[in-house]
Amino acid sequence: MKSLHHDRLMTPGPTPVPEAARLMLARDLRHHRTTEFREIFRQTMEGLKKVFCTKNEIALLCGSGTSAMEACVVNAVPRGGKALVLYSGKFAERWAKLCERFGIFPILYEVPWGRAFDPAVVRDYLERNPDIQAVYATLSETSTGVGHDIAGIGRVVAETDALFVVDGISGVGGMECRTDDWQIDLLAVGSQKALMTPPGLAFVAVSDKAWKKRDAMTVPPPAFYLDLQAYRKSAQTNDTPYTPPRSLVAALLESLNLLNEIGIEEVWRQTSRLARAVRAAVTAMGLTLFAERPCDVLTLIQMPESIDVKRLLSDLETRFGVKIAGAQGDLKGKAIRIAHMGMIDELDLIGCVAALEQLLIEQGWELTPGAGLTAMQRELLR
Amino acid sequence: MKSLHHDRLMTPGPTPVPEAARLMLARDLRHHRTTEFREIFRQTMEGLKKVFCTKNEIALLCGSGTSAMEACVVNAVPRGGKALVLYSGKFAERWAKLCERFGIFPILYEVPWGRAFDPAVVRDYLERNPDIQAVYATLSETSTGVGHDIAGIGRVVAETDALFVVDGISGVGGMECRTDDWQIDLLAVGSQKALMTPPGLAFVAVSDKAWKKRDAMTVPPPAFYLDLQAYRKSAQTNDTPYTPPRSLVAALLESLNLLNEIGIEEVWRQTSRLARAVRAAVTAMGLTLFAERPCDVLTLIQMPESIDVKRLLSDLETRFGVKIAGAQGDLKGKAIRIAHMGMIDELDLIGCVAALEQLLIEQGWELTPGAGLTAMQRELLR
Repeated sequence: MKSLHHDRLMTPGPTPVPEAARLMLARDLRHHRTTEFREIFRQTMEGLKKVFCTKNEIALLCGSGTSAMEACVVNAVPRGGKALVLYSGKFAERWAKLCERFGIFPILYEVPWGRAFDPAVVRDYLERNPDIQAVYATLSETSTGVGHDIAGIGRVVAETDALFVVDGISGVGGMECRTDDWQIDLLAVGSQKALMTPPGLAFVAVSDKAWKKRDAMTVPPPAFYLDLQAYRKSAQTNDTPYTPPRSLVAALLESLNLLNEIGIEEVWRQTSRLARAVRAAVTAMGLTLFAERPCDVLTLIQMPESIDVKRLLSDLETRFGVKIAGAQGDLKGKAIRIAHMGMIDELDLIGCVAALEQLLIEQGWELTPGAGLTAMQRELLR
Repeated sequence: MKSLHHDRLMTPGPTPVPEAARLMLARDLRHHRTTEFREIFRQTMEGLKKVFCTKNEIALLCGSGTSAMEACVVNAVPRGGKALVLYSGKFAERWAKLCERFGIFPILYEVPWGRAFDPAVVRDYLERNPDIQAVYATLSETSTGVGHDIAGIGRVVAETDALFVVDGISGVGGMECRTDDWQIDLLAVGSQKALMTPPGLAFVAVSDKAWKKRDAMTVPPPAFYLDLQAYRKSAQTNDTPYTPPRSLVAALLESLNLLNEIGIEEVWRQTSRLARAVRAAVTAMGLTLFAERPCDVLTLIQMPESIDVKRLLSDLETRFGVKIAGAQGDLKGKAIRIAHMGMIDELDLIGCVAALEQLLIEQGWELTPGAGLTAMQRELLR
């Protein structure tokens, strides 16, 4: 049955783009080697630093989040080097795959999907392997919904010569991430998550410790496009080494301005409140939260065996306009993921829970109508 | 406190415009005296006739709904003539004011705001005043939330020589209105309500009976721009007599296509379901419905005296992005109006009720969190 409804993008990337940013995308195209663009670039860098909580230089890449991750590997550890990978989830796996591709030996500290890493264990690994050159971690693991203890792990890594490298792609801009305070040496971020910009831009914030390692490399890294030195050099004149996606940068600046107008700490607080409300709804609906240490930007919900998850996702989309994500790996077909970051707001999430309630009841799940919504309202009213 | 949220337009006009229509507005401007525009015009007329349930010719005006109402007065009754105005609410008043301005004598059949007209009483008026040349009625009275018995009144008027004139501005396209079956001679409609197009276009559907009256006028009507004969003549070549707002017409065609793809009767059914759900929520929140015969496109809710309605409306907008309407006349500051038509969908309304619950509780209203939402879910799950 066709019906009139809005589409609601509630996936952990891409996320909805604010109107001010979308309008920038609709503008006539302008050239990028201009004073005007250099000013946009300068303001964008300023805005990114506030959001990332860093004074470090930031490389602005035209690429997906994975391009930023690759830059964090090839610019940090030379071929033959050793890295510790905190291994639990699809995106942690990507760090390991990247290491392998570039001849870096990954030592895996593995915990089951849904569990979090213990900084004390990271210390053990580092003590037993003093030749580890970098530790690869994930702020919010999008495939499990876990938010890892980056502050705690950062303290441990900072005691060593190893670089602390964090995939903050889905978390930064939505949940607490204090790049400098947490001593993150390389932070990878993407545009299409909490930064509320279409996919196409990626960022790497680089600490002095990381620049020193990069500059000390005697063999050039297996990278030309992703060689961070080129980005540092161009950034000195507020420019990029290769053609930047100009419209996306202009859109990003609008989204950054929105975040910084509110203040990034206030944004974290609001995201965290929404995350708690969604978790309250999940429990009240008799469903199971997967992450032992849930992140604030998305919630992974395990579904009862009786529920046809594929049908649920399709009904959500076609009947309610709600696009959320399924799950990956072993969780595929058994779980769903709701994002709560960026422009995805309180009423979007209430609507999503309402639609879920209706569809779960329709699929025979024992649930009092309004149970999830009521729990959510109580949490929001605290 | 600033926060990230979408804006949600939930007023009884303007209403949100679907993406396909908005994209038409963003296109480069084209000229209107072209084969291309004539084809757009032709399809638009076809689409309007389906939505209005009529075979009658339709005049497409560049103007607000009031321009269509004025056309329905000056083209129907000559100066010195007599008209019956079904008088209850701000928009019924407008019929009376228009009559007065053009030297037409309005006989008022008045009922208190919130009440509906009785076709039997209309018959009485017509029998006692056989010189009444037109009966002015309102499909959905936006200021009271009443949906009047247009079918019943139409049957009564059709027995006489009087024209049956209906203000369908806020209702047509959202709630049942069978122009031909209900024997409506002049139907006024606006673009910015259930037709999901920005303000700027208005329509008058004209029956043969109405054309006969117009053509028989020996003194030209006090109208040049709003002389319906000019529109009829131009429409024969799929054109307008004066410059049409071309972008708006192209946008309207997209919105009409959406409505007609679903089918207008199905749209009515869906709107009606949403209206019932909102009414269930209102009652469950301990609030009062105003209309004795509620229309399907909006709900007027009387607020308890303890509630600061101005603050409520402002909090809804600034904290939740929800823009609904206050009330008019004696109800000003004492009631709110939520629209449920066009692109305003199930989850928008659930979100609106959630926000209302939170703000009412904040203002001290005794209300169990989730009470309105639960009632709404139960109604939607029927």
